[in-house]
This record gives sequence, C-alpha cells and structure tokens, in this order.
Amino acid sequence: MKKEITEFLYGGDYNPDQWPEDVWENDIALMKELNVNTVTLPVFSWANLQPAEDQFNFGWLDKVMDLLLANQINVIMATPTAAQPAWMSRKYPEMLPVDAQGRRHKHGARTNFCVNSPDYRRFSGQIAAKMAERYQSYPNLILWHISNEYGTYCYCDHCAQKFREWLQKRYGSIENLNHAWYTNFWGHTLYDWEDVVPPSHISSLIPNAFGNRDGATNQSVAVDYNRFMSDSFLSCMENEMAQIRKFTPDIPITTNLMGTFKPIDYFRLSEALDYVSWDNYPSIHDPASLIAFKHDLTRGLAKGKPFLLMEQTPNQQNWQPYNTLKRPGVMRLWSYQAVAHGANSVLFFQWRQSLGACEKYHAAMVPHAGHLNTRIGRELKELGDELATLDNGLLQATNRAKVAILFDWPNWWAAEYSSGPSKDINYVRIVHNYYRAFYKQNIPVDVVSAQADLVGYDIVVAPMLYMTSADLAARIKQFVTDGGVFVTTYFSGIANENDLVITGGYPGAFRDLLGIWVEETDALSPEMRNAVVAADGQNVLSGSYDCGIICDVIHTEGAKVLATFGQDFYAGQPAVTENQYGQGRAYYVATDSEEALLDELMGSICKLVQQEPVLAVPEGVEVTRRYADGAAFTFVLNHNATETTFSLPDGEHTDALRQAPISGDITLKGRDVLIFCTQIKG
Amino acid sequence: MKKEITEFLYGGDYNPDQWPEDVWENDIALMKELNVNTVTLPVFSWANLQPAEDQFNFGWLDKVMDLLLANQINVIMATPTAAQPAWMSRKYPEMLPVDAQGRRHKHGARTNFCVNSPDYRRFSGQIAAKMAERYQSYPNLILWHISNEYGTYCYCDHCAQKFREWLQKRYGSIENLNHAWYTNFWGHTLYDWEDVVPPSHISSLIPNAFGNRDGATNQSVAVDYNRFMSDSFLSCMENEMAQIRKFTPDIPITTNLMGTFKPIDYFRLSEALDYVSWDNYPSIHDPASLIAFKHDLTRGLAKGKPFLLMEQTPNQQNWQPYNTLKRPGVMRLWSYQAVAHGANSVLFFQWRQSLGACEKYHAAMVPHAGHLNTRIGRELKELGDELATLDNGLLQATNRAKVAILFDWPNWWAAEYSSGPSKDINYVRIVHNYYRAFYKQNIPVDVVSAQADLVGYDIVVAPMLYMTSADLAARIKQFVTDGGVFVTTYFSGIANENDLVITGGYPGAFRDLLGIWVEETDALSPEMRNAVVAADGQNVLSGSYDCGIICDVIHTEGAKVLATFGQDFYAGQPAVTENQYGQGRAYYVATDSEEALLDELMGSICKLVQQEPVLAVPEGVEVTRRYADGAAFTFVLNHNATETTFSLPDGEHTDALRQAPISGDITLKGRDVLIFCTQIKG
Amino acid sequence: MKKEITEFLYGGDYNPDQWPEDVWENDIALMKELNVNTVTLPVFSWANLQPAEDQFNFGWLDKVMDLLLANQINVIMATPTAAQPAWMSRKYPEMLPVDAQGRRHKHGARTNFCVNSPDYRRFSGQIAAKMAERYQSYPNLILWHISNEYGTYCYCDHCAQKFREWLQKRYGSIENLNHAWYTNFWGHTLYDWEDVVPPSHISSLIPNAFGNRDGATNQSVAVDYNRFMSDSFLSCMENEMAQIRKFTPDIPITTNLMGTFKPIDYFRLSEALDYVSWDNYPSIHDPASLIAFKHDLTRGLAKGKPFLLMEQTPNQQNWQPYNTLKRPGVMRLWSYQAVAHGANSVLFFQWRQSLGACEKYHAAMVPHAGHLNTRIGRELKELGDELATLDNGLLQATNRAKVAILFDWPNWWAAEYSSGPSKDINYVRIVHNYYRAFYKQNIPVDVVSAQADLVGYDIVVAPMLYMTSADLAARIKQFVTDGGVFVTTYFSGIANENDLVITGGYPGAFRDLLGIWVEETDALSPEMRNAVVAADGQNVLSGSYDCGIICDVIHTEGAKVLATFGQDFYAGQPAVTENQYGQGRAYYVATDSEEALLDELMGSICKLVQQEPVLAVPEGVEVTRRYADGAAFTFVLNHNATETTFSLPDGEHTDALRQAPISGDITLKGRDVLIFCTQIKG
Repeated sequence: MKKEITEFLYGGDYNPDQWPEDVWENDIALMKELNVNTVTLPVFSWANLQPAEDQFNFGWLDKVMDLLLANQINVIMATPTAAQPAWMSRKYPEMLPVDAQGRRHKHGARTNFCVNSPDYRRFSGQIAAKMAERYQSYPNLILWHISNEYGTYCYCDHCAQKFREWLQKRYGSIENLNHAWYTNFWGHTLYDWEDVVPPSHISSLIPNAFGNRDGATNQSVAVDYNRFMSDSFLSCMENEMAQIRKFTPDIPITTNLMGTFKPIDYFRLSEALDYVSWDNYPSIHDPASLIAFKHDLTRGLAKGKPFLLMEQTPNQQNWQPYNTLKRPGVMRLWSYQAVAHGANSVLFFQWRQSLGACEKYHAAMVPHAGHLNTRIGRELKELGDELATLDNGLLQATNRAKVAILFDWPNWWAAEYSSGPSKDINYVRIVHNYYRAFYKQNIPVDVVSAQADLVGYDIVVAPMLYMTSADLAARIKQFVTDGGVFVTTYFSGIANENDLVITGGYPGAFRDLLGIWVEETDALSPEMRNAVVAADGQNVLSGSYDCGIICDVIHTEGAKVLATFGQDFYAGQPAVTENQYGQGRAYYVATDSEEALLDELMGSICKLVQQEPVLAVPEGVEVTRRYADGAAFTFVLNHNATETTFSLPDGEHTDALRQAPISGDITLKGRDVLIFCTQIKG
Repeated sequence: MKKEITEFLYGGDYNPDQWPEDVWENDIALMKELNVNTVTLPVFSWANLQPAEDQFNFGWLDKVMDLLLANQINVIMATPTAAQPAWMSRKYPEMLPVDAQGRRHKHGARTNFCVNSPDYRRFSGQIAAKMAERYQSYPNLILWHISNEYGTYCYCDHCAQKFREWLQKRYGSIENLNHAWYTNFWGHTLYDWEDVVPPSHISSLIPNAFGNRDGATNQSVAVDYNRFMSDSFLSCMENEMAQIRKFTPDIPITTNLMGTFKPIDYFRLSEALDYVSWDNYPSIHDPASLIAFKHDLTRGLAKGKPFLLMEQTPNQQNWQPYNTLKRPGVMRLWSYQAVAHGANSVLFFQWRQSLGACEKYHAAMVPHAGHLNTRIGRELKELGDELATLDNGLLQATNRAKVAILFDWPNWWAAEYSSGPSKDINYVRIVHNYYRAFYKQNIPVDVVSAQADLVGYDIVVAPMLYMTSADLAARIKQFVTDGGVFVTTYFSGIANENDLVITGGYPGAFRDLLGIWVEETDALSPEMRNAVVAADGQNVLSGSYDCGIICDVIHTEGAKVLATFGQDFYAGQPAVTENQYGQGRAYYVATDSEEALLDELMGSICKLVQQEPVLAVPEGVEVTRRYADGAAFTFVLNHNATETTFSLPDGEHTDALRQAPISGDITLKGRDVLIFCTQIKG
Repeated sequence: MKKEITEFLYGGDYNPDQWPEDVWENDIALMKELNVNTVTLPVFSWANLQPAEDQFNFGWLDKVMDLLLANQINVIMATPTAAQPAWMSRKYPEMLPVDAQGRRHKHGARTNFCVNSPDYRRFSGQIAAKMAERYQSYPNLILWHISNEYGTYCYCDHCAQKFREWLQKRYGSIENLNHAWYTNFWGHTLYDWEDVVPPSHISSLIPNAFGNRDGATNQSVAVDYNRFMSDSFLSCMENEMAQIRKFTPDIPITTNLMGTFKPIDYFRLSEALDYVSWDNYPSIHDPASLIAFKHDLTRGLAKGKPFLLMEQTPNQQNWQPYNTLKRPGVMRLWSYQAVAHGANSVLFFQWRQSLGACEKYHAAMVPHAGHLNTRIGRELKELGDELATLDNGLLQATNRAKVAILFDWPNWWAAEYSSGPSKDINYVRIVHNYYRAFYKQNIPVDVVSAQADLVGYDIVVAPMLYMTSADLAARIKQFVTDGGVFVTTYFSGIANENDLVITGGYPGAFRDLLGIWVEETDALSPEMRNAVVAADGQNVLSGSYDCGIICDVIHTEGAKVLATFGQDFYAGQPAVTENQYGQGRAYYVATDSEEALLDELMGSICKLVQQEPVLAVPEGVEVTRRYADGAAFTFVLNHNATETTFSLPDGEHTDALRQAPISGDITLKGRDVLIFCTQIKG
C-alpha cells in the first residue's frame, strides 16, 4: 500500500543548484508567501550529483532537503536521469542515440541517450538507488518522479538487436513475423531474425512523404517499432523504479507525461505508475476543449483516479513560435480546469526563472525581477491562498462519466502511417472533434484505452478506430448487444492489430454491428467539398452540413439512413447511419464534417440515453463535477473574457472557495471560476 | 525476329505468393469472369524464389504457371530484381546504395540497390537466367519484363569509380574533360581521373537551392552524372537481358517506364527494348492533355510503334496526398485513351488487393471485399467484354502525325539545373503547354527525341531547347530549309551538349535560323507580369495576352515581328517573331504566356500548313486515329462529365465496340467513348 | 605606412585563365574602350597555379601581369585560396570541412575547407608567399585581396579541439566556463575541457526549430562558437597576410566582405584589414535604403574611412530565385550610391562572362555576345568616362554624421538564437527600420560597433540591443549623461555578453537610464495586432500606429510617456517613453510598429538636436555628402523611375560630372544622378 498524498500540492520544479546558497533562504520565504507546499527536484542535476564515475556529491542536496524539511515543504524527488553527465557520454559513447537519419548524436541537449543502452541503464539505476537510499527517511518525500519527459527514439545497432528479441517474444517464429508483416509484399520475406532492420529514414521510413509526418513503406513494421520503443521506455523506467522500491517501497512513483504525445503509448507506460502526472503546455491556438480533453485523457491513463498536474507555466512559454502572455485570470482559470478534471495538484515549471540557457525566457513563479510584486505574482498568491482553503475531501473525489471516448496509441500510429487514402487523416483532430461535441454540452466524458472495460457506459465513441483487435471488436459488440450506444466514423474497423486488412468488406470489424458495407472511400483534396443532408423520416439530424476529407460510399445492410451526401456520384447515398443491434444502437459517420453536425448528432444521442449537462450554462462556460463521499464538487469555469450569468439548481450549495452558502442566479466575471459543493447521497 | 503479341492484353500484376493456394482457383475464375487474358508476375518475388544464396524455390511458381497455362492466360514474366532478398543485403552490404547525402542505406523498401554493384549484377543475372531456363517452353510466356520502375541513384565509391571510367570513355583525355566541364571556373582543374568526385549534396549539388529542385555548382558535371546513371540503368538491364536471351531469344523484352520520369533518359533506355511499356498514374489535378502527352511520349520512345500500358489503377491510388476515386466511367475512358494513343494493352496494378504493407489501399481489380459485385467490378467487366470484341487489326494500327514535339532528357536536366535566370523554369510544363495547343484542336502530335529524323513532319516544336548539339541544330536548320515550320521559345539554343554557352549572341544555335538576337533575358518574379500584344500588319495573332516568368529583349535580324511586349523598358520590342528561312519558317516565342496565345499561334501555324483536326468536336472531346492496312480507327473520348454531340464525316463507318454501322449526328454521354472504323485506301 | 590608392578604381574581376591567350589582347582593347583602370585577379586560380604539391605554374599569370602593366592597368591581386585544388583535397582529406550535420564534405564547390586545418593553413600561406615574392615589384600592384568571401563553418574534431583552446584562453578555468554557459541548467556541468562539444545539429543546434533559422539548446555556447569561428577566419586570413607582408609590407591588404553576413563578426575581421571592401548583391526586393545601410555599415567597418566596392553586377545576377534585369540607369545609379556613401571604387564581378559552370548566367562587363554594343555596354562606357573625370579630391573625402546606429554581430546571434519570446525577432530588419527613418529624411548616419567611441554624436540608436556588456552600458550612460540622445527598443538590455540575464528587472542594463521597468513582454502571433497611440501633453508624437510582434508591459520609473498601447489588458500602458538622464535623454520603443511611427519619432528627435537634412528633396531622392579639404561633394540620387525637381541651396556649386557651375532649380531624370561640389571652410 502506497502512502497517500493528503493535501493539494502547490508549487513547482525547484533547481536550487542553479543558484548560490544565499538565494535559498529567500526561496523559502517566497514559497511561504505564496503558500507553496511542494517542490519537485532535482530534475536535471545528475552532473552535479555525480561529478565522475566514482564520485558522488550529495552535500548540496542534503542541505536543500534539510531546509525544505525544516520548512515543511513536500518534495517530489526526481531522478536526474533525463540528462546524463558529459563525462559519461564521453566515456561511454554508445550511450548516445542514433537518430532516424543514421547519425550517432554527440553529447548535448537532453533526453539524449539510447533508451536501451546497458551503460545508461546501469548508471541510471545506480543514481536512483543512491538517492533512494540517502533520502528514504525524509518524511516530506511524498512522491518519486522518474527522469523527465521520456521520448527520444534510437535506431542504433543495439536497439536493432533488442528489437529482434522483442519480435521473437511477440511472434515466436519467423513465419509468424512474415505473416504479421505481410512480407511477401515487395519481396521482404525474412529467413533469419538478423534480417530485421529497424524502420528508419535510411531503410524504410519516408520523412515528410505526407506533409509533416513520416510515411513508411511497411506500416506493420513501423507500428511494431513504436510498440517496441514504448516498451523500451517502460523497461528503462522500471529499471529505476526497482532500485527505488528497494528503499522506499511505500512511496508512490510517477513520471511526467505530455498528453497526446505520439511517440510513447502512455496507456502502456502508465501501467507501471502509482500516480499519473502530466505537463500542460497548450499552444496559443489550442481551444479550452483540447486542454480539457488532455486532462481527461490523463485521468484515463490513471484509470479514473485523480492525477497530478506536474507542470504548467505561470505565464508565457518560450519554445512556441509566439509566446503570448497568459492574459489576466487565465493562469488561475486553467489551474482550476486541471482540478476540475481530476488533478490534485497545481505545479509549475519552474520556481525561479533561470538566468541562462534555452529556457531562460520561460516564465517562472519567481521571475527574473526576483520578487512577487508583479501581476503574475499577485495571481499566484491569490491561487495559493485559495488552494490552501480547499476542502481536502476533494482529494478523493472522482469524476464520473457515462460517455467514453476510446483513444488508442497503436491505432494513432497506424492510421497516420497509412499510405492512403488521404494525407489529412489526423487522429487527435477527429477524436477532439467528437470530444468537443460533449464538452460544449457539459456532458462528462471518460477517455479510455482499447483495453478498457466498457461496462457501465451508456455511450462509447471511437472515432477513426482504424486498427481493431478481434478482442476489442468483440467487446464493443457485446457492449451494444447489452444496450450500449456506439459511435464510430470513416476509416474504422479496417485493419487488425498488425495493420493487416480485415477481409470481407469494410468496415471489416464492424460491418455487421453497423449494418453497412463501405464499398469505396473517396478522399477529397482541400478544394473539394461535399455536404451531409439530413434524411427524411428520422429525428436525429436536421439541416445540411459541409463536409470533406473522406467520404465513404456506403450500402446499408440493415442500418437506417440518418443523412445522405449532397453531391457527386454518391449523392443521396448514406453519410450517417444508425443500426439497431441487440439491445443497443451503432452509429456511423462516413465523412469529416463541420462542427455543427457533431453537435447535433451527439446532442440527439445524449437525449436518447438521457445524458444531461451537469449544469445549464451559457456558451464558453465549462462545467464539471467531482464526487466524494457524500458530496459533489461542481466546477464552473468561465472561459469567456466577459462576464456570464447562470442559475444554480435548487438545493443547498456551498461556495468552496469562499466557504459560504450560495444559490440562485450567479454572475461570474470573465475568466472567473466558481466551485460549489453539494451534499449528495452515496 | 521476336514473337508478335496477337491480342489486346487485358489483366494486370498478379502476386499469388501473397495468398494461400486455395485463393488461386478463385483468381482464375474471376479472371475468366472479367475476360482477363494476361497477367504480369512475379514482380517482387525474389526472396520467395531464392531463400538463400544457394537455394531456389520455384515450386510455387511452377504451379501458378501451370494453372495459368491450363487456363490459357498469357504471362508477362517479370524478373523479380527490383527488391533483393534481405539475406543478400545483409551478406553483401555494398549492394546497398549510398544516397546524395552520403548515407549508405539499410535494407528496406524497394529499388534499394546500387545499380553498378557487381554483386547485384551477378545475382540479378543469375535469377533471370534461372527463370528463363525454367519457363522458356511455356507457350503462354509472351513477354519478359525486366525488374520494375528503375530509378534509384547511387553515389558510392564504386559508382564514383565507374563514373570515372565512363568519363574516360566519353572524353578520352583529362584535358578534354577539363574543357567540357569548364573547370577553370572556381579552380576545379583536374589533373588525374581520381580527382573526379560525383556531384552530391556533400560535394556540389545544392538541395532545394531553388525551391523544390536541386541546384548544382557545376551543371556540366551534374548532367554527365545523370547521363552516366542512365547508362548504368541501361547496362544493369542489359545484363539481365543477355541472360534471358540465351534461353528465349524470340520472346520480346520490356521494362515498365513512368512517362516524364526525370532521373533516367528513357530514349537511351528504350533503345534496348523490344517493347516499350509504361505505368500511368496521373495525379488528381493532371489534365487529360498531360496524360495524352505522356502516352505520345511513350509512343515516341517506341519510335512510333504501338506500346503497352503496363500499369494503371482501376480506381484510387494510395500514395498521392489525396487519393480521390476515379469517377464512374473514368477508368474505361482513360483505358481507351491509352489505346487511342497507341497502346495495345490495358493492364492494371494489381489483380488482387494486398492485405498488408504500404500499397494495401491502392485499388485492385479484386478489392479487399473479395468479389466483383462493385461499381468498379462492373466497369472492369464491361471493359473486358468490349476489348475482347475489338478488331485485332487495330493491333498493328499506328498513329500518324505531321507535327513533332521534341523532348530531350539531357536538355531537361540542364535547363532545370541552371543557376539563373529563373527558378520557375520548368521543362515539362512548357512542353505540355505547347502540346496542349495541338491537343485542344485534335491535331495529332508525335513526341520525338533529339536524335529523331525530322523529315516528313510539317511542324517541329522544340519548347525551351536550351541545350542543343551542333548536329541537332544542323538538322533543324535543314528541316526548315526544306520547307518545314519550326517553333521554339525563350531559353533555347543557348548551350551545347556540355552546357557550355554557344558564343556569338543568343540564341547561339538558332540566331540565324530565327533571324533575331536576344540581347538580354529578363526574369520576372511572380508578382511581375507583362503582356504580349499582337503587332499590326500580320494575320497570325490578334489581341493581347498576359505573360511572365521570362521576357527576352530582342533585336530582329530579318525576322518579322508578330507581337511585342506591352510594358516595361522593352515595351514595343518583339515578343513573338517569324522568320523565313530557306523554304520554311521559324517562330520564336520570347516569353511564357497564357494559354490563349499558344492556342492562337499554333492554330494559325496549323492553318498555314493545312493541318486540320481529325474531327470537329466540342470542347473537352479528344479525337485520335490509328491507321491499319485499309482501315482507320477513330477514337472519340468525351472527357466532359456531361453529354456531347458532334457529326460524323460523310462515308461509311462502323462502331467498333458495337460492330454496327454509324453515321450522322452522334451523342456521347459524359465520359463515354466512341471508336469507329472507316475503310481507307492504303 | 601603406601606399595610397590614387584614383577611382573602375573595372572588375578578371579571369584570363578561363580563356585562350588570343582573347587577352581583345580584353585589353575593350578595357581601354570602357576606361577600365583596375582588375582583380586571380581569384580562384589555385589549381592552375599549383598543379601538384611540388609544382608551380606561374607562366600564364606572368604574361597577364606583363600585359596589364604594359597597358597601365592596376591589379588587385587575390590569393587564390578560396578553392583548394582537387589533388590537395584528395591527398589531405581532413582539409575538407565537416558540416553541422556531422558530414565530412567531399571536394567540390568553393570555400570548402576547414578554416582551422593545419594543412590548409600551410598551403594557403605558401601560395600567398610565392605570389608576393613573384609579383612584389610590379608597380601596378596596388592592393592585395585575401581569398574570397570567407564563411564556411566547420565542426570537425580538429575545430572542436581548437574551440576548447579558445575557451581556455577566454575563460581561464572550467569553473568560469560553467558559470558563463550556465551549465547547471539541464545538467551540463563540465569537469574537463574535453567535455566541450561544438554546438551542431547532432549535439544541440536545432535546425529550423523556429522557421528558417537555427535554434540552440544553449545560446551561450552557440554564440561562443560563432565568436570562435570569427576568430578562426581572422587567424586564417592573418596567416596569409603575414606571408605577404614579408615581401610587400607597403601594399595594403583587403578581403571582400558581404554586408550583413551573419556567420562572421566583420568588425572583428576588419581590425586586421588595411582596406575594407565589399560585394553588393541586393535581391530584387531590397529597398535603396537597405543598400545604403550596408554601405554605411561597410564604412563603419572601415572606421569611417573610404572603402571599396569590390563587386557588383552590371546587370542581372544568376543565383537569386528570380534574376531580374537591372533597369536602364540602375547600374549607374547604384554605382554612384556606393561612392556617395564612401566607396572609392566601382568594380564588377566579372570582366568577361564565363561560358560554363554555375555563374555563367551572371552578367559581366563583356557579355556572352562578346562585344560592348549593348544597352549595358553603353551604360558602362558612360560610367567609365564619367569616373575618369571625377575630381580625385573626392578620394580623401569622408562622410560625416551626428547620428550613430549601433550594429553588433554577437548581439545579432544571441537575439536570433533566443528561444522566446518570438520567432519573428529579426535584428537586421529592425536596425534597417530605424536606419530608414533617417535615410528618408536624408540625415547622415554612421553605423558603429559596440566598441565604438560615442563621443561627438548627437544621437545614438541601438535597436534591439539585447546583449550588452557592462562596458557598453556604461559608455551609453556616459554619452547620455553628457547630453546625448539615446534610442533603444524592446528586447534590449536583457543579457550580458554571455547571454546571461541581467538581474533586477528588465531592461536590466538600461532600467535606470530609461526610467522604466518592463514587467512582462508579450509576443503577438501574426494575426494579433495592437496600436501605439500618442499620449496627451507631449509634442513628439501624434496619431495612432499599427504595431505587433512584441509589446512590453511597462511601468514608468521617472520616464515620460509619449505613447500608450491601444488594446488588450495593457491598453493605456506606455508604448513609447522618454527619460531625462543627466544632460541627455533616452527613448524606449516598446513594440514593433509601422514605418510612420519611426519616421515621426526620429524626425522629432532630429529636430530636438537640430539635425537637418543634407538637402530638401522630394520623396525617393537620396542625398549624401562627402567632405574633403575645403570642399563638399553632394550626391543627389533619384531612385524614382520618373523625373524629380529640387532647388540647390544658395552659394556656388559645380556639377562634378560636367565640370560646370550649377544653381537654382534642378530637374533630374528618373534614376539620374547629380554630384555637385561646394567650397567650404575646413
């Protein structure tokens, strides 16, 4: 049983080794001023902790730890393994990664190691063990944080060999591998495991073949390399975890994830974690719904349990093309958005702004000016004060949803590696489009994996579920048979888990479930558009909607036609269908449409299963709810720059930030937040 | 004397080794249903035929060949050498190519071998010989097909050495080489053949210096490397051909070309071929005239003889950015367009759609659904039935043209390597622009090489003939002296075959022929435009036309001015000229103009030499004619989506698809085709 | 004391070794026809001068030198070291550079050597010595020209070692280096000089991270590598100079620079030069003000002394995307523009147009046509005749300015390496924007280095002076204290010379001088705009101006607000400020505004310090003045295509091109030039 975290965490990454010791006392004083109760450290300090292969220098960290303990500040202790020391790269050069261009990198930057390197594994395990041994008894050590933002792929000969071993384990025989990879195509039959070559830009990955993403001459191989790399990160992380658990078996462990980060299957990586945490760095054009989606995805990685917001910036970033300031109120608003979706922390990168190197213009809690008498300083102070008063009952409170959106990394990889039908196939975009339709209506959504249990959901939405295992298809069918509503789209049910096409007519895995046959799939170039026109004799859709990118040519096999295409040789043929199947229904959307169609379709489906908004509010206002024992905490987030007004439901509610009863009509200022608590049964 | 092909070939690439044997009987049944009479195989099966250096496995292919023979299906037998087995790359790694970035590639993809590799040549010759020996006596073996879509350049040390040998043969002495390459510029004088370095991105090719194409710091070297590589492909192919001819001297041989494919001088490669064939994969924005141009180019490669359409897709492709469906009728329309321009086959890639790897979403005759009860299945059935009834007299029928358009690969390379005057210089674009002017008027055109005999043509058009040998210039002048009409454009006659400028004033090679001196050549940036304004006192041009990209500043030296520039400091100076020379005339177009100018100019010139359309038809309708002994077959192709009406000429005509007499006004549906046969004398 | 150059130089690069000897006599005749008095040679002839390691072939050059001497043509003798012979690269392959991708280049192109290569230094020193020894006594040898357009960076292991030595010298200890590079960030603490790795694309430079320029994961390292490379070019050049000075200590030495060429700190390189010269190749979209700026920058490199225009093209270039012709009059106009800004030469690349290789379509004085009876030939003749009559008193005449614009290479590098706040930060663009405001008002400007003495200037403008040494900041403050006017902008005063942030609040170095505190810096994406609105109660600015890219959020600390922002949460906060400091004033512009704001602001400031235009003229007319003993030469350049009229000031003036008195109203034709001389005192 791991130790629980018993308060809302507020603070951020702390890098005292960038500063002279005389700054540390000031750090503590300013932390106290802001009500900071937690810091993460020492994320990149390996070189400072291990100056040479046989030398360790923990003295400065001991002092910092003692100072934090004395001031009752929690520590999330990071292993510093995201950047090995320069001497290590020099002495063990095979630790450096080989990129997809075949180039062995030189020391520099960060996450610049071969994830399978035996030397790296040996040294990273060693430093993790040293730290765990040394700091195991600090009572303020609440969480371990392994390395930092894993993600660099390697294509070296050692990785090639590990890949072969991984394949042997997965496929057992070379015959199975040949079948799974369809190697008869283009004469790639393998006769020896040694014949396997990692897919790279000098073997079979095609850089930028389709715009900004990699193409591949064998998608099955490419997807397996992604799986292998995901497993490599997992075992690299577990190597450190094993060392740590020798000393602190009861301290939970996390690593910081990055939302929709394509290179790693986070559902796989998260299996090993005690806590899931992530770093939230939206670009300036990301809508609030996309941030919300990533929070819900992170909660899904945590299997519905509360998670941690490990990093965000108090103000502007530095590595975007344009690093716009967070407007007044936005930092607080987005902090509560994290909590609203299940976060039990508001942590920042970083505590004190660095004076040099590449992130010196990334905002920090203490800016270059060195004091808190700034707009952001005042906002941080207000937020810290509020969080300190938040009811700790919220810590165990969980979000609840009857709608699940399925998100699957291998499917993402496979769909976007696909050569054809269209370069504009974009998995995150379409998943977000469906998510947004629920978000706008304030209907809670869980984001779940392809392995998730679907029982208990009313609606399961799996946009572009291109790659589907037989097991997943069977579970989805059972879900519908038992009365569930399933929604999927074009480019779904096509291929099995090895990216082999499921024979017998598209969408192979779901043809009977959906009651349709997709005879052809048209790919429209950007200047080509079509329309979705609501059919007569149904009350799900009305009106006409612009569409494009993909248009399936469909024959119904039992399904009811909800809308048809408006133009081209398949005008009048089905564009949206509904099929009764067992006790449930399965919907198919055969094209990529404008937002309004999804709003209406998801709205109608929600009405059918009596899913209702958490609260009726004006546009631009987000509402979520977390449920604790006997109480519900409702979060109302006004993303508008201007004030908004809505009515509370009848009943007794308490303003959780002001600890006062509230009721009736509420007016929230632009970017303001209301959290209210309501007693409930169960 | 090679064996003739005695029927229209209908079928496609057949890859039975991708499927279990129990599918093969179904393949035959479906082929029979579609009237398929020909398959191409086994294009990429090297790894399946030669599992190890000393092992061969022909058993499965024997079975397939027997099955095809029993069912009277012709075989185009491909050597499988476009993709060597993985074990071969592993054992002989110098077989793998080095790219222009200096990177030795790893095994993967296809055409991934050094074309000059001795090991590759040895093994590819061996497998070709084995196949020829084994299958020589099959009566249904009608054609050999060497490898597949050659084209990968190599820059390895062995290629460097072969390049030096090639140069020694071409230039004899290092002094000649220094002169031809103008090495005094930038101090590149060579004193030893070993000083020669292939032009690559790490020596002197500049990637993307001018937008999307390579620049070069010495164009003469770069052009010679292209010539050398073209010759390398030729000798690599001939190495296989020599082995095959030991066993089947009377079976013709082809390889599949790709139209305007820049890396290989196809006129050079085609010299060795018994049949010229090509793969027709237009992008969705290619106009019908561009496809027609490529058919005519292929017929030009075949020196006017009928050719083969080796590959096209029955429906969508997979490797375009947007793989739009072929609209109803388009597959049939484009199939007949090939025949109309001289093809004696309609073959597809591929017979049965692959379940895995990178072309699984490329359409096939038998789709993933596994049956023919589809829109495309029905279209294929209709086409197969029609082709089976076509008069075989058409097989020997040839196209005839009095207009020749000159197309030259070394000129293409040199013009587009050129540093200056403009990055928008585009050879295929301008050649197509001139071709289109004839195409729109349904005046037949031959596309001929720089070595072609010009005697017998009324008009020779050589757009942007930048690089001109003395021999070619002399033949063109003789052609005009003898009464021919010659048309050329800006950026012509400038350089000799080594890309050395011809002295004495532009356009050096053609100054006297054209009766002009080009003093300066202005290059306009995209936002700059000028105008071509028809001159008084001539009846060739009228009106005013937008122009840009290049504007020559011209002084006439005997030529008549047909049009002048409308703006800038050379306003009023010649833009289009006509020069009487011997019994003929030579035209010069000094700029890149809008379509209408070329339509009018080529129209006027055709009238002058009494070239008339094959048939008067509405816009968007293409008409060509093939002439057999005593009969002419006229093809009318309605590229419009809507119906069209036209009148047949007087006389007796037979509808060749319906075997019925036709006359008078004809209405063709959108995308429909009419072929009629007319008895003629001679 | 170096020999003076005693006449205006007119001529260009001469490459006789590209031509047979029988052309040389014709060259001389044509030179005489054009009044050419100077040629530069033999720029790239190393391979022709040294056919093998132990062979030299000076015979042909002796003949050329004798011919030139006999015809009284000056020689600027170039060492031919910009392109080593092929045999040398082959024999000493480590002489070839390694690029930022880690690829050792092969022989080809030019400037294709490792600038630190011991072999290259040995051979380049040797050939320089041989030439100096051989031609030392030629009286027409007026100037040495080292190599050509230095600039290729190298990242080889030898350069890495030299970089470490350079760092040891600069920083003394590894501790100092760690501090200067802020290596505690991301764990980059170094314990050994061997730990230093040059910043490259396979260590820590990120190609195209921000659009078209390199990012860097440690800007301090990247800037130091640029400094080290600048010093490497300097020592490489000095190596040749030392050899030359052994034989011709009194002949001045130059190398040809390229204006705002980013890779080399030209202020550093120019320290070693006797003459500063540059090659002027504007792109077709460069405004006249940008060319003027580069001339003034070059004069700044020469510390205000006259400089040489070493290369320009008589007509079109060849390596631009679109090589537009120079319109009639433009070649002459731009030639006089060079002289107007301080050039004592009008030299061209090149004399006779090459027949082959990559610059054959670059215009030359003698074009491919081989004669001068061309538009450009006539323009060159007119110009040569005019220059021959110019008063040689002008040779010593200097430009004088009371306005200095500071330009600093390390600041340029650092500002544009910066990760944040905006990828649109562009140093040359903003410097030119401020320069243009003076240029349009014909107020002379000096462009000065960060080391320049500011005493004597009325106004010093330092746009985007991001990186500031303590010494520079002190000198600027002293300048203002003493009564000067200082103008700076957003993103100034932030970092010290190692790119470490100056603590205590932005703009650290200038906070007290400017009387402001910049609390935050907003970065606007391209679709975001704001406005600068003139404040009440001041008479410097009026109206409202569009702005974007960067907007600082400012608190005044004594400064007067001249304008405020019009929108967003900082609407009404300062956008332009003025601070009284000592006897002077300091201005801050907190955003990137449209042209009109700078015109008005600089205009107002000039009025305050009584800076007036050289001459009142219409728009598009440029006026500069050079001052000799007792005379002022005023240049009036009409950049308009149409004629313009203006009035001469009272007094006696002589038309310097026609040697005739002029006065009163003057009308200049489009692109025409007037130079008039006025007697002055002192």
